[in-house]
Amino acid sequence: TEIRVAILTVSDTVASGVGPDRSGPRAVSVVNSSSERLGGARVVAAAVVPDEVGKIKDVLQRWSDVDKMDLILTLGGTGFTPRDVTPEATKSLIEKETPGLLYVMMQESLKVTPFAMLSRSAAGIRGSTLIINMPGNPNAVAECMEALMPALKHALKQIRGDKREKNPRHV
Amino acid sequence: TEIRVAILTVSDTVASGVGPDRSGPRAVSVVNSSSERLGGARVVAAAVVPDEVGKIKDVLQRWSDVDKMDLILTLGGTGFTPRDVTPEATKSLIEKETPGLLYVMMQESLKVTPFAMLSRSAAGIRGSTLIINMPGNPNAVAECMEALMPALKHALKQIRGDKREKNPRHV
Amino acid sequence: TEIRVAILTVSDTVASGVGPDRSGPRAVSVVNSSSERLGGARVVAAAVVPDEVGKIKDVLQRWSDVDKMDLILTLGGTGFTPRDVTPEATKSLIEKETPGLLYVMMQESLKVTPFAMLSRSAAGIRGSTLIINMPGNPNAVAECMEALMPALKHALKQIRGDKREKNPRHV
Ligand code: NA
Repeated sequence: TEIRVAILTVSDTVASGVGPDRSGPRAVSVVNSSSERLGGARVVAAAVVPDEVGKIKDVLQRWSDVDKMDLILTLGGTGFTPRDVTPEATKSLIEKETPGLLYVMMQESLKVTPFAMLSRSAAGIRGSTLIINMPGNPNAVAECMEALMPALKHALKQIRGDKREKNPRHV
Repeated sequence: TEIRVAILTVSDTVASGVGPDRSGPRAVSVVNSSSERLGGARVVAAAVVPDEVGKIKDVLQRWSDVDKMDLILTLGGTGFTPRDVTPEATKSLIEKETPGLLYVMMQESLKVTPFAMLSRSAAGIRGSTLIINMPGNPNAVAECMEALMPALKHALKQIRGDKREKNPRHV
Repeated sequence: TEIRVAILTVSDTVASGVGPDRSGPRAVSVVNSSSERLGGARVVAAAVVPDEVGKIKDVLQRWSDVDKMDLILTLGGTGFTPRDVTPEATKSLIEKETPGLLYVMMQESLKVTPFAMLSRSAAGIRGSTLIINMPGNPNAVAECMEALMPALKHALKQIRGDKREKNPRHV
């Protein structure tokens, strides 16, 4: 019952080799150090794509439908610039929205900086995979994961259809 | 000018007769005990359906379009398990989203438990009917109703087109 | 690099000449007095339309696609009455949703009044234009603008594609 996690860095700069991927390794480290709290999570795939809807969708779809990942975290591309399209790519693929995850990420991020209001992150379920857009900033990734931590293990069990997890309070 | 309320329990377990409906009676009790604060609300219909989009939609559509209910509360089916589809059924029917109701339910529910972030509740208006997804947990129903109470009577008057209710602050 | 702002009052009463436009002038005043904090904002257009989806869309589309406004604020039509359709008109036009702006407006408005939960405001980006639905109440407009102020200048720079604005924390 290991939790398989995949991490997708979305960045023109990183994809073109112009800059280093600071967010990806940080997200891997956050997931690994929270492995137990997440029910035994392990990062089993990581990739980098430019800020292009088609390329983002291709990876998300493969990781969901073929590789049956439990959790996909995307990093970056959630802002207001013309190239920021990660939420649009994500929303076109998810079958069930999970707005409460966005709520707590926004709530906690706003405690750190008012610029958090510029996150356009989406999140939702596709098949048995939970996809969550994270900010590109490495520190923000850690903060958003921390916001989700109290319920993320439970969320992943529910997605797998674990009946014992069916009726927690408020769901 | 009585407010007519209908309550739909969404649960495979209850619909199949395997378990008792704890949420439905609790919601009836909450509405009845808040009748005055809601402008004279009364529960005039209640039903149970399994976690199936088609069956949920059938009841919601009849209660909205034919029976012209003022308020429909659904109970359950808002979580992350594969069978949880109440929000999807609801969103396919509502004509106007009411995100502020979801905001305050989330805000208040998170004060009780972090698992509230796993609620995927939807809410909105269809014709002259307000439809709100509530959690399946009986205590959570009461907490969510309490969160809405300060403005729900006003909301129901607005939906009826009461002109005196047209311009409260912030709307 | 001046920020061009347009303000659309959505109101049957004002459009028909039955009542005065109290929100429009107030919004102009708020924008002008915050000009510097917004990076040199100036109101360059204002109009009034009735609560009709088609008429709202026509103006929003012209101001976005032809006049290339940086920021459009709509005032009113965001409530629960049958005539309130500003969010629906807006959502049909925006290409990218900006949910964080709605979050902070809701968060701050709820501190003033619980009726804020009745706001159904939408917000998003169309081309290089940011469109934000504001409440019709003149005081509420000022309060919502204040909620956005810490990040709005930054948002408008990002939409213009300013690379130096690409990677603030949390985006
Ligand atoms: Na909040």
